Amino acid sequence: MTYSAFDHPILSGLFGDPEIAALFSVDADITAMLAFEAALARVQAARSLIPDEAAAEITHLCASFSPDKAALGRAVASDGVVIPELVRQIRRSLGDNAAHLHVGATSQDVIDTSLMLRLKAACGLVLARLSSIIDAMAALESRDGAAALMGYTRMQAAIPITAADRIRSWRAPLERHRLRMSEIQATLAIQFGGAAGTLEKFGTAGPALRSALAAELGLADQPQWHSQRDGLVEIAGLFSLITGSLGKFGQDIALMAESGGEITLSGGGGSSAMPHKQNPVAAEVLVSLARFNAVQLSGMHQSLVHEQERSGAAWTLEWLILPQMAGALAASLKLALSLTGQITRIGRTAA
Amino acid sequence: MTYSAFDHPILSGLFGDPEIAALFSVDADITAMLAFEAALARVQAARSLIPDEAAAEITHLCASFSPDKAALGRAVASDGVVIPELVRQIRRSLGDNAAHLHVGATSQDVIDTSLMLRLKAACGLVLARLSSIIDAMAALESRDGAAALMGYTRMQAAIPITAADRIRSWRAPLERHRLRMSEIQATLAIQFGGAAGTLEKFGTAGPALRSALAAELGLADQPQWHSQRDGLVEIAGLFSLITGSLGKFGQDIALMAESGGEITLSGGGGSSAMPHKQNPVAAEVLVSLARFNAVQLSGMHQSLVHEQERSGAAWTLEWLILPQMAGALAASLKLALSLTGQITRIGRTAA
Amino acid sequence: MTYSAFDHPILSGLFGDPEIAALFSVDADITAMLAFEAALARVQAARSLIPDEAAAEITHLCASFSPDKAALGRAVASDGVVIPELVRQIRRSLGDNAAHLHVGATSQDVIDTSLMLRLKAACGLVLARLSSIIDAMAALESRDGAAALMGYTRMQAAIPITAADRIRSWRAPLERHRLRMSEIQATLAIQFGGAAGTLEKFGTAGPALRSALAAELGLADQPQWHSQRDGLVEIAGLFSLITGSLGKFGQDIALMAESGGEITLSGGGGSSAMPHKQNPVAAEVLVSLARFNAVQLSGMHQSLVHEQERSGAAWTLEWLILPQMAGALAASLKLALSLTGQITRIGRTAA
Amino acid sequence: MTYSAFDHPILSGLFGDPEIAALFSVDADITAMLAFEAALARVQAARSLIPDEAAAEITHLCASFSPDKAALGRAVASDGVVIPELVRQIRRSLGDNAAHLHVGATSQDVIDTSLMLRLKAACGLVLARLSSIIDAMAALESRDGAAALMGYTRMQAAIPITAADRIRSWRAPLERHRLRMSEIQATLAIQFGGAAGTLEKFGTAGPALRSALAAELGLADQPQWHSQRDGLVEIAGLFSLITGSLGKFGQDIALMAESGGEITLSGGGGSSAMPHKQNPVAAEVLVSLARFNAVQLSGMHQSLVHEQERSGAAWTLEWLILPQMAGALAASLKLALSLTGQITRIGRTAA
Repeated sequence: MTYSAFDHPILSGLFGDPEIAALFSVDADITAMLAFEAALARVQAARSLIPDEAAAEITHLCASFSPDKAALGRAVASDGVVIPELVRQIRRSLGDNAAHLHVGATSQDVIDTSLMLRLKAACGLVLARLSSIIDAMAALESRDGAAALMGYTRMQAAIPITAADRIRSWRAPLERHRLRMSEIQATLAIQFGGAAGTLEKFGTAGPALRSALAAELGLADQPQWHSQRDGLVEIAGLFSLITGSLGKFGQDIALMAESGGEITLSGGGGSSAMPHKQNPVAAEVLVSLARFNAVQLSGMHQSLVHEQERSGAAWTLEWLILPQMAGALAASLKLALSLTGQITRIGRTAA
Repeated sequence: MTYSAFDHPILSGLFGDPEIAALFSVDADITAMLAFEAALARVQAARSLIPDEAAAEITHLCASFSPDKAALGRAVASDGVVIPELVRQIRRSLGDNAAHLHVGATSQDVIDTSLMLRLKAACGLVLARLSSIIDAMAALESRDGAAALMGYTRMQAAIPITAADRIRSWRAPLERHRLRMSEIQATLAIQFGGAAGTLEKFGTAGPALRSALAAELGLADQPQWHSQRDGLVEIAGLFSLITGSLGKFGQDIALMAESGGEITLSGGGGSSAMPHKQNPVAAEVLVSLARFNAVQLSGMHQSLVHEQERSGAAWTLEWLILPQMAGALAASLKLALSLTGQITRIGRTAA
Repeated sequence: MTYSAFDHPILSGLFGDPEIAALFSVDADITAMLAFEAALARVQAARSLIPDEAAAEITHLCASFSPDKAALGRAVASDGVVIPELVRQIRRSLGDNAAHLHVGATSQDVIDTSLMLRLKAACGLVLARLSSIIDAMAALESRDGAAALMGYTRMQAAIPITAADRIRSWRAPLERHRLRMSEIQATLAIQFGGAAGTLEKFGTAGPALRSALAAELGLADQPQWHSQRDGLVEIAGLFSLITGSLGKFGQDIALMAESGGEITLSGGGGSSAMPHKQNPVAAEVLVSLARFNAVQLSGMHQSLVHEQERSGAAWTLEWLILPQMAGALAASLKLALSLTGQITRIGRTAA
Repeated sequence: MTYSAFDHPILSGLFGDPEIAALFSVDADITAMLAFEAALARVQAARSLIPDEAAAEITHLCASFSPDKAALGRAVASDGVVIPELVRQIRRSLGDNAAHLHVGATSQDVIDTSLMLRLKAACGLVLARLSSIIDAMAALESRDGAAALMGYTRMQAAIPITAADRIRSWRAPLERHRLRMSEIQATLAIQFGGAAGTLEKFGTAGPALRSALAAELGLADQPQWHSQRDGLVEIAGLFSLITGSLGKFGQDIALMAESGGEITLSGGGGSSAMPHKQNPVAAEVLVSLARFNAVQLSGMHQSLVHEQERSGAAWTLEWLILPQMAGALAASLKLALSLTGQITRIGRTAA
């Protein structure tokens, strides 16, 4: 079963990034959800809302809890979310302390927080990969920057430029995106609102509890955003800005590879029909990934119309889309770094 | 690694359909690709283009060939397509007959034809599921059709209608889609054009060979459509018309479930925070799936801009999108049938 | 005020098509709406539902009624549709026969039918333009078809093809679209359902009345489709298939113009900075228009989620999008014909 | 000719905002373009690149130059941009100083800078409107905040919340958007790069000249971004975040209006068929506008794939889309403020 190219057994050779894919695995999701439940118990115990001993048992259990995934799958078919069944399973193992698990929380708190934890890690990986690409482009500029290139406007030769001019047009946006991603990473927030977003189980103690929970999990504190999806959608937008900028890079390389004379690439894909072919596969796929994320972002923006205190329709649409955008971004970063490294020469001569 | 909800180890409990998912598995794809190669050999032998004995060996080998998938994955990373490596692997097992494999064909012939074969099967499954839903809605209309419902226009009570009026608005589009899908299924065509779409290896014998190949594989005959993606995009459009119509059905049920009084549903999802909840999960998810495919279709239409004889950028974008649309359609059909069955009563009283 | 390039006072020099734009003008819309009301009165009089004399007066009045557009604009701000105010205005001029206007109809009947009437005319113009392009491409093939071209796959030179091979890849889809548009044009249907789609004012006489109304207006008969938007969305899909196919044509020309040697174009756009430039503007804009419609189609598919008997949210989204798609299609057809005519030579030498 | 609802002679009664629409009028665009040319002349004269007297004449002429718009329209049909012809027209009026106009600039410098100037003004209007809505919602919260509301999750009654809880979910995102828009407004940058982005006419003096030009026009300074569209696309993203958040507001109101009991609205749209109707038109249209911009944003992101030094295809796509997004945002802000004012009561009783 392989609907997504990003973790397709074979196509992932081209589109996959195991490190980032791991963050979107079931196991990573479950681990993060368990981390939420354990952290919640700890901060509640610290406020004497549940016994310390319960928090200790929950922490211990969650550290290695291995849920019955088949049962989770059956439950999600009717519940629409995994958490009611997951909580039931953990409670069965807790005995007397069962009631002290998931106190005052709702499924969305767990699911959204898990996503934020994993997105935070993903941002870190993305930042590192962006830096690698930026550095590789800087090295390219050092090596070949003075070489002449023909500038093209509206698909026609215009006037001469240098390789440095072209390389900067690839690198400068990435530097902007890196900065923005760094800012956004710091804002990734806890999700904690309870059943209908009012933390009704905690009265006036809710906000402080949430704040402590955020700190415990290493996330920013922010009032619940169950139906306010703009922060998450902004992250998706940045994913697409990055793949879009890398798509321009890919398109430029593909055009140079087609006209020849101004670029030499190592590697290049073979053909089953034409032995002479050296296709600039990575360059073309960067364009595909850019257009893919440009398409997906529309779905994330449709999800902003999130009615009332929780919309199953709008929220579920996010689940179908956001992981894909991360997969596309991961593939794009991988291929862009690889492609930069394939450029053995860019430009004609030293200017 | 679970980027797609449609084959996610847990979420597939809600979003998955194993039968249709199987058509998009690696194994189904490989099987279909091998079927292409074998059929190609047979029709070429029938025209004395290759020895009968070579066709026999190729057929025998392809019937059970188990490729080295890891090697396929490594190769796709540079080639962008699996076929060059797959062909190399099969040839290694063919010995003297190696040269008689994949004669005059190109990767796109194999990959697109494999897709058509599997889409043809998928259309069959979709037609059956559509009929089940149509029949279930007809039964609903028989049982409850005379009951009164309040008609709503612009989110306001308008005038009374009957349950039959509402049910027909769900069923009539599905009947149209079923008819159209049946028409389209019959047009799913062979892809056979060779390196650059001219079947250059066969001179004037190309079209007849292609026609025989189409017949051998049970597909319609049509000149190569390497860069003409409109037929495929039209199928994607129909997928989205179906999920869209089912999304309207889901939205209507969710609205009725929210206002209460005019519908009784069995089942319903639980909440981790509110024991009284019976959420109309399937209804909401039908809306998500509709909006998902509405988003994806844009990417398929972007892919119409398929430059020259083969565009890696445009073609690859299709791979990232079309399987997802099929997965969403499968989920939608499953949930719609299930939801129809959950309606224990619709309407207030007999009119 | 010029939000749309398609009727922008200046940009319409590039993007505009006055003939098709006229079909989307306020006056054309009002004329069609008045035609609906007059036809409705006539068929109702024929069935003795209203006096013949009323139908005669209504027909006479509607033939030249010039509404107070400012008042229509004020009314639409609160009603969301123009019809309640338009009907009020016409009634004021009718005196005793006021009650015989718009009997049993609703705003959506008038607005959707007006759209169908104008789309029917638009389809006729599109068919004619498609034929012109198809014929021009056929002439190109006659003149230059035997010339050699380099085939390109994955942005790399592949093997030689002929100009005819490339031209056919542009023309064949247009022939398919022309056939499909002709089929669809014949299915454009009357919209007549009354307040909540049940023609409740007419009892069992509703369907026959609707059928007569369809015939009177030259549209196909079909039960009301107030909340079933699939037919309309299918038309939008065909618009985008056409612009997509023409986008591939434009992209191919732009690439050939950039690499040079295989195409000579007359015309070509100037630059304010580089006197030597002859930009393949039409070719590039065909790509823009293709991508534009690929984007818009997503919104039409979102509109399939049309809740209950009439959704203001979903229906209004169509109004924001469909005219734009028609404008893009009109521009695309104009530029494609023009571009085909600009090709003074394609290919290198006679093969 | 009225392809866009935002400046449709009648529909603009609902969708139009004359103040923001004016910024997208031909006259505003021309005025801004002329401002660019005049400012360019002045800063060049200040650097002795052209005679002071030429700059004075250019400034004087541009302040009231009324171009031949018909000629501009004819020229754009072949040039794809208005500037070559506009510059020709201004030069004809300049006599000896003709050569000192538009020195070292290219069409894209003028067109993109004009857009930035008008977007800067638009941001100011948007900020003001956002503040009005935020304040109106705050007033609503003061008046009705303590009232009880039923919280709804997954289209089902959940637990009681207060009106304040719901109102805050509408207001908080707007406060975030206002902050972000204010930040972004300050970054709107000059576009000045010359023919192929290298300011080749100015050697090392280019950056300082650009910086002076930015200051002269009240825009931020930034190296040319001819092919780096991320900044502009980010603005479009914020437009859609705002309409999306307002779409959630509209959807919530529509749902409350449908179920009744928890909201009273003044106004409300009439029906031509059902005299009792009071349709929550503004609420529904807010949803339409949200989904509209969610669709359009995809096109802006597709435009990030902007090849080489200037892409006619990608750039032109922006022109077809961005003004529409601004029109939708303007409509959304207007309707949201109006709708907030229509809420005479929200909630059931004081909690």
